[in-house]
Amino acid sequence: MTLRVGVIGVGMIGKEHIQRIAHKLAGARVVALSDVNEAAAREVAATLPGAKVYLTGEELIAAPDVDAVLVTSWGPTHAAYVLAAVAAKKPVFCEKPLATSAADCLRIVEAEIASGRHLVQVGFQRRYDRGYRALKKTIDDGLIGAPLMIHCAHRNPTVPEAYVSDMAIVDTFIHEIDALRWLINDDYVSTQVLKPRNTKHTHSKLDDPIMVLLETASGVRIDGEVFVNCRYGYDIQCQVVGEEGIASLPEPEAVPMRRNAALSTAIMQDWKLRFIDSYDVEIQDWIEATKAGRVNGPNAWDGYFAAVTADACLKAMHEGGVAPIVTSPRPTFYA
Amino acid sequence: MTLRVGVIGVGMIGKEHIQRIAHKLAGARVVALSDVNEAAAREVAATLPGAKVYLTGEELIAAPDVDAVLVTSWGPTHAAYVLAAVAAKKPVFCEKPLATSAADCLRIVEAEIASGRHLVQVGFQRRYDRGYRALKKTIDDGLIGAPLMIHCAHRNPTVPEAYVSDMAIVDTFIHEIDALRWLINDDYVSTQVLKPRNTKHTHSKLDDPIMVLLETASGVRIDGEVFVNCRYGYDIQCQVVGEEGIASLPEPEAVPMRRNAALSTAIMQDWKLRFIDSYDVEIQDWIEATKAGRVNGPNAWDGYFAAVTADACLKAMHEGGVAPIVTSPRPTFYA
Amino acid sequence: MTLRVGVIGVGMIGKEHIQRIAHKLAGARVVALSDVNEAAAREVAATLPGAKVYLTGEELIAAPDVDAVLVTSWGPTHAAYVLAAVAAKKPVFCEKPLATSAADCLRIVEAEIASGRHLVQVGFQRRYDRGYRALKKTIDDGLIGAPLMIHCAHRNPTVPEAYVSDMAIVDTFIHEIDALRWLINDDYVSTQVLKPRNTKHTHSKLDDPIMVLLETASGVRIDGEVFVNCRYGYDIQCQVVGEEGIASLPEPEAVPMRRNAALSTAIMQDWKLRFIDSYDVEIQDWIEATKAGRVNGPNAWDGYFAAVTADACLKAMHEGGVAPIVTSPRPTFYA
Amino acid sequence: MTLRVGVIGVGMIGKEHIQRIAHKLAGARVVALSDVNEAAAREVAATLPGAKVYLTGEELIAAPDVDAVLVTSWGPTHAAYVLAAVAAKKPVFCEKPLATSAADCLRIVEAEIASGRHLVQVGFQRRYDRGYRALKKTIDDGLIGAPLMIHCAHRNPTVPEAYVSDMAIVDTFIHEIDALRWLINDDYVSTQVLKPRNTKHTHSKLDDPIMVLLETASGVRIDGEVFVNCRYGYDIQCQVVGEEGIASLPEPEAVPMRRNAALSTAIMQDWKLRFIDSYDVEIQDWIEATKAGRVNGPNAWDGYFAAVTADACLKAMHEGGVAPIVTSPRPTFYA
Repeated sequence: MTLRVGVIGVGMIGKEHIQRIAHKLAGARVVALSDVNEAAAREVAATLPGAKVYLTGEELIAAPDVDAVLVTSWGPTHAAYVLAAVAAKKPVFCEKPLATSAADCLRIVEAEIASGRHLVQVGFQRRYDRGYRALKKTIDDGLIGAPLMIHCAHRNPTVPEAYVSDMAIVDTFIHEIDALRWLINDDYVSTQVLKPRNTKHTHSKLDDPIMVLLETASGVRIDGEVFVNCRYGYDIQCQVVGEEGIASLPEPEAVPMRRNAALSTAIMQDWKLRFIDSYDVEIQDWIEATKAGRVNGPNAWDGYFAAVTADACLKAMHEGGVAPIVTSPRPTFYA
Repeated sequence: MTLRVGVIGVGMIGKEHIQRIAHKLAGARVVALSDVNEAAAREVAATLPGAKVYLTGEELIAAPDVDAVLVTSWGPTHAAYVLAAVAAKKPVFCEKPLATSAADCLRIVEAEIASGRHLVQVGFQRRYDRGYRALKKTIDDGLIGAPLMIHCAHRNPTVPEAYVSDMAIVDTFIHEIDALRWLINDDYVSTQVLKPRNTKHTHSKLDDPIMVLLETASGVRIDGEVFVNCRYGYDIQCQVVGEEGIASLPEPEAVPMRRNAALSTAIMQDWKLRFIDSYDVEIQDWIEATKAGRVNGPNAWDGYFAAVTADACLKAMHEGGVAPIVTSPRPTFYA
Repeated sequence: MTLRVGVIGVGMIGKEHIQRIAHKLAGARVVALSDVNEAAAREVAATLPGAKVYLTGEELIAAPDVDAVLVTSWGPTHAAYVLAAVAAKKPVFCEKPLATSAADCLRIVEAEIASGRHLVQVGFQRRYDRGYRALKKTIDDGLIGAPLMIHCAHRNPTVPEAYVSDMAIVDTFIHEIDALRWLINDDYVSTQVLKPRNTKHTHSKLDDPIMVLLETASGVRIDGEVFVNCRYGYDIQCQVVGEEGIASLPEPEAVPMRRNAALSTAIMQDWKLRFIDSYDVEIQDWIEATKAGRVNGPNAWDGYFAAVTADACLKAMHEGGVAPIVTSPRPTFYA
Repeated sequence: MTLRVGVIGVGMIGKEHIQRIAHKLAGARVVALSDVNEAAAREVAATLPGAKVYLTGEELIAAPDVDAVLVTSWGPTHAAYVLAAVAAKKPVFCEKPLATSAADCLRIVEAEIASGRHLVQVGFQRRYDRGYRALKKTIDDGLIGAPLMIHCAHRNPTVPEAYVSDMAIVDTFIHEIDALRWLINDDYVSTQVLKPRNTKHTHSKLDDPIMVLLETASGVRIDGEVFVNCRYGYDIQCQVVGEEGIASLPEPEAVPMRRNAALSTAIMQDWKLRFIDSYDVEIQDWIEATKAGRVNGPNAWDGYFAAVTADACLKAMHEGGVAPIVTSPRPTFYA
């Protein structure tokens, strides 16, 4: 059985997922497309035998031959499409963010629970990264004992003027927010944001770098550096300190070289390449889980938890001091 | 268009490729199966909707709905199936070895040339490994200048009693034989095999370790350690020394740990996992190239060259001294 | 000219320095000894041709043939001996701490200034470690641009029951307190201490691990993990993040091994070995600087600054929140 | 007791050892100097209180206040001075080579045996290098089992025109020749030299790189790359493959940096710095062993064995094929 997928939003990430499904993955086919820019949708459709274009996401969701929906449209539109898919009882994969407010995320959580089915997956792809998975396995296998601290960093060589301080949380650190909870099977209870002096390479609307501190329910302490004008490359670091030892995220494979008076390996410059393989794994897993009526990946609750955490980080960043991270209790539906 | 593939031989590697095509890769479908053990073929066919079982490989090759053939049967049968596929002008992917003698390999080369079409690919999967590809790109990009030497090692934790000395060349080092030529775009002209004293962990029919020396047409010198009872793991090393610097095969990604008084990363134990991803890339590339009427990967000439080189290594190993590596001139068909 | 040294305190570290001067370093001789345990002093003296034993440190300091004094007695006695040496206008090397209170440190600072001579060096040996020096040179050479953050860790495999929470600051993190200021040529202005949940390997009087946050005058932010029951080894980590790049303290040289399914290097277990070479460099440098009438190493002001910082860290640890780090202005004498 | 040392030859290495003894090491004093260039000797003497200048090495050796002799003169003069020291029954440290012919080395061996005392040490300083010592300890402790192979490399960024092919053996690989025997407690029985095509960075009188193969009495096989125009740095590699695992020479400590799109550590350019610390350890050990009437380091037999091996390597390099390495039996004096 081939999963018939409808894609809402044919921008960069939408196109990539479409190519993936068409040319790299097994078991699915893109049969429907929709975009605010209809011409863009038609252009993509021309390359996909049998794909239909719908004028609205809602029509696409309603189409009888669409088994499942992939939402890759502009962030502020996510919630409505996801809610529509849930209402139609169709599985939906939504790129992050699940919604642009915690309240909307909670609305999706409630709708999904009400539907009685697990339908929603959020596009936090790091959970599908080979390195993070190996790190999680190391922890889950007990090799380092119970986690006590995490030291991590999210560095980007440079950002454009349009990237302002809040984006360090909602666009950048949001990946750590989801991945670290999953890594240690824990929830956050408070956060604090420290501001080192700014690098001279930042601009007036961006505090860069910052350090985000998180405390978890079990007492794990996390310090996360976010440095988006670090110049030297796109670099994701994660070190988990446990009671018996320490495990770190592997560096991406690179050719060791001895030349020009140095022993070196290249560091990636482009964030799009850092987790490129994880997208294949993520979407293939979504295809298979969807066919089996399950959600394996980050679910609506995870999307909600990330949103609440991000809000608290923003509050801590703007107001100083420690901000509590408070959610409604985790529903048994997501236990 | 979906490539309809017939698979001859449903042993371990055959089954893996079938799973790959059915559940991980795009653009192909297994429609035909054959095996000396018919029951085994029927068992696999039961899991593949629409797949037919043929009593002989020849019948499978002749089947009109078979677009391309995958040969994963017992080595001594390879040549006949490949020749049959070439005669039928059907693209054929043959697991290594292409044939069990250089003479048979040459027969395939001649048949393919006579057919006027590029049809044959050999299963040397290292050319599809991410690490080898990155290493080759480093060399091709000129980052280390012209190659002068290669130091390499092929180590396996242990081998069974059935593994005897010749297998160190024809089953193990054969991968280096193909990969290193490709890596530096060069051909071999002579070889010598050195025998260190044996490890106590070997058995009476196996000289282990050995060191294989190769000289190329351009004067590059290669020293290759083959050590199949090295105890500690499956470990592939390759360092290319050039006029301006040195580049090495990356170590496989692994979680760095600090525990038990050591900073460590795990070394794989199972050779099947070391290049597992490369098989996906290899078969996906074969599917696409086949549809486009091309052979991208190692071709019949490469299979022949490897066979001639392996024969020379065996001669050097048995007789001592330097053995020349002589092939007929490379046909322009493979230029 | 041979520097004639008097040593007060012949415990472990005292004996080590005496051996160093007698058998490894050039240009000095131990001519005088004193210890609360006179018998211990006599025992050591018996191994040093021509060395005299004095009943009190004050007598030793006053002895005309003592050119310089090495204080390696019990911490609470340091201040009195250092003040006596300064009063006698004799150069004095005092193992850390300079004094057990910031007030006493300040008294020494004032006495030294009043003496008009640079006489006092404190035994913060990390400034003489090859790795820290290489790291400092990297920073001073501008290779990573202006520092913005430091991530560091001080880990010990285990501590005895006698080691209680305050010692994490005054005995352990005190080394980072001195070394990091020196590394980036900066002063601290505030601190905060975070307490992750305790490792199960700690005892009731020790919060372990802790994280010490420091802010510097120029806005650099430091996060320092102190984890003294980390089990796996004695491990000192330091990473300085600058505007153009990042530099880290080198791992100590160790033999890379491939065995037992891992690629590994040993991690030291004994803190005494980690900086063992730096003591030689430190004392040799002190001998030479003393002969030249200079103090090259950490001076009385550094000892005072460390004491004030440690007090603030303790306050932050006990009371929570951010504790300011306030000293009197740096005297021009130490500019 | 201070060892009174006479130094013959005040060129670069002679001056360095003199500085070492005067300003860094304990237990010795330079009391006598001699050089073919008398003015040079006088200049150095002016910096050493109480040092006398002798017109000939022989007079220096004969001087009653000279306890031990350090020979750092031009290579061809070594044998005569060492023989004179042995005749005078004075301990002598001779920089490599012990003599410029194996015959002269053997004459020294015989003279030392005839003297009945262990007097001669040769300046193969790698045995005192921290990394090599750690590697040897790893092997001696049985961590990798019995050695089977050694892969090593000796690389230099560039050499002047005066450096011709033979020097790759007698000046460069000679260090491996001594160090590897010592490392695995074994002797060589044959050698072969392979010549890859030359790097374009060499000149007409230098084959560069070369590969030296050695076989030991116990059957260990060694492949040693010598590449003296490798461009990128001075780089010494050594990997010992044993029955249970593999151990390598540590890379020299260097600051890991993340900058300019790479994770890198610097590689030394200057060979004089690579083993700089080992000279201190070597000469300090010689001082102490000499006082105790012993020779701890490489002795006359080691110097002879190295000379015989180097001669065989040269023969193999010039004539091709395998050259045997044959010495007289090891005298029990050196057992």
